[in-house]
Amino acid sequence: MSDTPSLSAILDRIDAGQDRALDRLKALLRIPSISTDPVHAGDCRAAADWLAEELRGLGFDAGVRSTPGHPMVVAHGGTGARHVLFYGHYDVQPVDPLDHWTRDPFDPAVEATPAGDVIRARGASDDKGQLMTFLEACRAWVEETGALPCRITVLLEGEEESGSPSLVPFLEANREELAAEVALICDTGLHDSRVPAIVTSLRGLLGEEITVRGPDRDLHSGGYGGLARNPARVLTQVLGGLHDADGRVQVPGFYDGIEEPPEEVLRDWAALDFSAEAFLGEVGLSIPAGETGRTGLEMLWSRPTAEINGVWSGYTGRGFKTVLPAEAHAKVSFRLVKGQDPRALRDAFRAWVRGQVPADCEVVFQEHGAAPASGMSVDAPVFAAAKAALTEEWGVEAAFVGAGGSIPIAGYFQLILGMESLLAGFAKSDDQIHSPNEKYDTESFRKGTRSWARLLATLA
Amino acid sequence: MSDTPSLSAILDRIDAGQDRALDRLKALLRIPSISTDPVHAGDCRAAADWLAEELRGLGFDAGVRSTPGHPMVVAHGGTGARHVLFYGHYDVQPVDPLDHWTRDPFDPAVEATPAGDVIRARGASDDKGQLMTFLEACRAWVEETGALPCRITVLLEGEEESGSPSLVPFLEANREELAAEVALICDTGLHDSRVPAIVTSLRGLLGEEITVRGPDRDLHSGGYGGLARNPARVLTQVLGGLHDADGRVQVPGFYDGIEEPPEEVLRDWAALDFSAEAFLGEVGLSIPAGETGRTGLEMLWSRPTAEINGVWSGYTGRGFKTVLPAEAHAKVSFRLVKGQDPRALRDAFRAWVRGQVPADCEVVFQEHGAAPASGMSVDAPVFAAAKAALTEEWGVEAAFVGAGGSIPIAGYFQLILGMESLLAGFAKSDDQIHSPNEKYDTESFRKGTRSWARLLATLA
Repeated sequence: MSDTPSLSAILDRIDAGQDRALDRLKALLRIPSISTDPVHAGDCRAAADWLAEELRGLGFDAGVRSTPGHPMVVAHGGTGARHVLFYGHYDVQPVDPLDHWTRDPFDPAVEATPAGDVIRARGASDDKGQLMTFLEACRAWVEETGALPCRITVLLEGEEESGSPSLVPFLEANREELAAEVALICDTGLHDSRVPAIVTSLRGLLGEEITVRGPDRDLHSGGYGGLARNPARVLTQVLGGLHDADGRVQVPGFYDGIEEPPEEVLRDWAALDFSAEAFLGEVGLSIPAGETGRTGLEMLWSRPTAEINGVWSGYTGRGFKTVLPAEAHAKVSFRLVKGQDPRALRDAFRAWVRGQVPADCEVVFQEHGAAPASGMSVDAPVFAAAKAALTEEWGVEAAFVGAGGSIPIAGYFQLILGMESLLAGFAKSDDQIHSPNEKYDTESFRKGTRSWARLLATLA
Repeated sequence: MSDTPSLSAILDRIDAGQDRALDRLKALLRIPSISTDPVHAGDCRAAADWLAEELRGLGFDAGVRSTPGHPMVVAHGGTGARHVLFYGHYDVQPVDPLDHWTRDPFDPAVEATPAGDVIRARGASDDKGQLMTFLEACRAWVEETGALPCRITVLLEGEEESGSPSLVPFLEANREELAAEVALICDTGLHDSRVPAIVTSLRGLLGEEITVRGPDRDLHSGGYGGLARNPARVLTQVLGGLHDADGRVQVPGFYDGIEEPPEEVLRDWAALDFSAEAFLGEVGLSIPAGETGRTGLEMLWSRPTAEINGVWSGYTGRGFKTVLPAEAHAKVSFRLVKGQDPRALRDAFRAWVRGQVPADCEVVFQEHGAAPASGMSVDAPVFAAAKAALTEEWGVEAAFVGAGGSIPIAGYFQLILGMESLLAGFAKSDDQIHSPNEKYDTESFRKGTRSWARLLATLA
């Protein structure tokens, strides 16, 4: 793709308008829209109002829509056959511990650092700075050409940092209004803080809680030990057998039907500069713990896992108690990949556990969620267009990457609105999101804006 | 053994004096000598004074000896070449929940029940009723013959229900005064509430706490799961491998040097009417969980165990948290049998665990006690004499039995005073010791007294 004359002018306009764009971002950052704290409900509303006003200034038909929680901003603009939905969130994380901040988290400023200028404030990166890249791209298009390049719906949420309780009902109640060809989501980062990245796969999640019950009361290990069954022994034998020596999960059928990522995606992963040892070294580890023969990125992005998230039984206080506990408990979760059916695996897991529990013990399961993995169809034209736009802008080959966790919004868009999500963002791993001293590189802001402007050009 | 004329008269005297003996027991039971509650310190002292006075009335040179906690009663009486020490404890358990009692726990009374008369009060069985059987046997001897039948030292403790903190220093400070040929301990029960029993083996105990540390912080299971090591997985694999499919402990050398009980003892066990299924049925279980090929009594008394007494890691609250925990912990204990060296096994266990922990995790151990098993030399004459006396009195062949737990006093007597302990008692399994409505069968009291009178006759 070569820059069309108007795109070139649009990009120049973005560069020329950086100071004013940063001023607008600062205005938004000054609003302490912490969604988890009821004290800030009015601030959340103020942030929504500010954004709706901003969108109206760009020619959108924008409104603030009530929910049982914080409001949604919904805006419609542009015309044409192509229709995209942009999603971001205006709420931010709490700021504790406040004394770890080098400045008031809601008094944003551009600071010079050895690695370049940053704008520092709560929400600078997650997600106000990122969502403003898209709005600034729209502004440049409108100011340069007088119109948006295609039909655009904007959906900005105010509860992302508090579990999005109102999101699903809102999507369900406004299906027709919100459905588009594709969702653009700007809430992810550059790979390795350097390579523009499009997340094309997200792992799913299956959560289970297990309780094994043995004797009908806690027993004394002297009077009963050796003859009476210990549920903690039963449960640790089950959990200890979850993986074999090659790190493979032993639940029958666990790997059935798994789709390997497309060749094109695997090629991108192989080309990334990723060192498992360096990645683990940052958290005090050194040895990849996944399946033998898989790369570190496969372990994180395309291979399913079984993890013990919690386990408890018996006496856990100070000192010692020679108790033979009546019950043992564990919380276990599975990260799932494309091709795995959460419901089928739940059944398989439960059957596998039950098969190991002696007849005089009881095992009870509690559900803690089941979400399938999502994998984007990278052969859809918008993915190639986005990759080209990002590559062009950043001067580095953009990569299709995976994400080890879930980004629920992508699943909801697929499930409720029937559309794929294109996840592209410009955060860096040192942005300190959710921590004190959050920042966003001004280059992320400028080049992010230019990236969206380029992508919109291909959709025009 | 046939009753000598004087023994016969002594036994008749015991029967004739039952009402007055029960009155004396009631007087002791009225003193609320709860050792764990500082409010009752004066009552503990009062119980000690009452017992010293009682012993003086029997011709003993008796005194109440201060300790940093509750006092000891020490009494010396009788003459002759044979010298025995009798041990009991005058302190009792707390009485909560008080509203579960059918009467004031410190207002003892004899109640008729379908199974016979019982005396009901806190301490009726554990251990005031039991210790008074020995004192009443002494009384009958003194009243009938004018003297004790041999040299007798009495040691009555007031802290047994609160961990005996003063006992070891007291034994160490009074070695010469307290050492005798054998200790008689009356704090155990009839086997199956019916068969007179002498405990000839006690299992030892080794306690260990394990902490496995992996990443230097809790990680998100989405971002790290699959690549990063999960300490809960490491620890459950270790714990899950503690036993093989035959229930044998997998720590190398664990069974080395174990002495099987003497033939004579195993014959007694085989003759006991013990059903593992019935024993387990009382606590809601049904399947013996010990080593394949061992009897239920072997699993409880003569085979060593490994038990998980506590395990904890990660998120254990309500709901779910997709955490990959930084640490995992367990408390593990081993019941040991004769021939096992606790220190050597501690080293073997730690080496076995360390060998399974990956190089990028750390494992830390904390000691929680190490006590060897004790096994009495049942070929010492006093054991045969006691067995004969009990058999004669109860009309049922007395049995040498084991105990799965530890009775620390027996170990201290062996270690500090160099003497064996003969543990015989008359409690029944339904005596509700440590629970509301504790009782002692008046037949246990009468026949227990007669049992000691008979045993003293053989020592005369």
